[in-house]
Amino acid sequence: MAEPASSGPPRGRRRGSPDTRSAILLAARSSFAKHGFAGTTIRGVAGSAGVDAALVHHYFGTKEQVFVAAMQLPFQPGELLPQALAGDPAGVGERLVRLFLGAWDSPDFRAPMLGMLRSAMTGEQGAAMLREFVGAALIGRVADAVGPVDALRVQAAAAQMVGVVILRHVIRLEPLASASVDDVVALIAPSVQRHLLG
Amino acid sequence: MAEPASSGPPRGRRRGSPDTRSAILLAARSSFAKHGFAGTTIRGVAGSAGVDAALVHHYFGTKEQVFVAAMQLPFQPGELLPQALAGDPAGVGERLVRLFLGAWDSPDFRAPMLGMLRSAMTGEQGAAMLREFVGAALIGRVADAVGPVDALRVQAAAAQMVGVVILRHVIRLEPLASASVDDVVALIAPSVQRHLLG
Repeated sequence: MAEPASSGPPRGRRRGSPDTRSAILLAARSSFAKHGFAGTTIRGVAGSAGVDAALVHHYFGTKEQVFVAAMQLPFQPGELLPQALAGDPAGVGERLVRLFLGAWDSPDFRAPMLGMLRSAMTGEQGAAMLREFVGAALIGRVADAVGPVDALRVQAAAAQMVGVVILRHVIRLEPLASASVDDVVALIAPSVQRHLLG
Repeated sequence: MAEPASSGPPRGRRRGSPDTRSAILLAARSSFAKHGFAGTTIRGVAGSAGVDAALVHHYFGTKEQVFVAAMQLPFQPGELLPQALAGDPAGVGERLVRLFLGAWDSPDFRAPMLGMLRSAMTGEQGAAMLREFVGAALIGRVADAVGPVDALRVQAAAAQMVGVVILRHVIRLEPLASASVDDVVALIAPSVQRHLLG
């Protein structure tokens, strides 16, 4: 069972009885697997765990935060992405690529993300979870931040970054696998920027 | 056991005793899994199968062709890629993207490729095979054809295409999953072209 990181006030109030937390996370994992991200409700998770919906919100926050905790994901998109998306639009491609590559370079991030990707490759339920999560939590946020942009273009930008981590961390193709983050940023940030902002 | 396609003279001469062919393919699969693509030799495969190396060449051709047959891959890179690489350099990005997307849109191509990708995600042997094959048979050919180009740039182009098929066929994110090949070509061919030829 992953403990939430211990710094900062919003996380402090998520603590609670370990048994209750475990029951909620177990119910959440089961619901996400059965119904996908979109089909899961806090109320449904609470019902399965035998607790009040307000308690789920109190411990974990939003449905996205329940998902991140249940899947033991190593990041909260709602905390990381806004930093990269804020600031000069001309640098958004570079900031996104740097954030994404830096995260994937950490084994603590990579292992659970590869787990999700593997499960997406072996069954429709896994694919549905990843699809809805990537669509809503990641790509949706980027689209909201850069303004009116064709969804296909945001996905082309995401594809550039996803492909690089597949070649770099799964297939481990050289020289990409050993290139520095700076070199890879220089390599693909212009392409990501062009997809997003033309 | 996959039979080779039945048209054309080079394939005709690859036929032989089904038992001998099976023994060679079995030995080849085992060697590729144990020693990777680079570490496998036709001589070694022949030895394990109890036949002469000349017979392996006679049935299958090059080591790459043995690999394609052993892995039951649905294409011969040596047949497909030269078509896309020949012709006006200004259109090479578009031709490569169209070839790649068209192949992935076919379930007969997709299923074995996803199988290779899955095995690359679950173990180093699978990753090594895919790495060496993608490196030599695919990316190496593109680098040879477009002239002196940084290997990182060829891999950035490959990453753009790989990422698109992951989002389109594994995660199945809309609107990318349902977009026409023409629309996706228009979306990413400029980025592939820029990576390859600046």
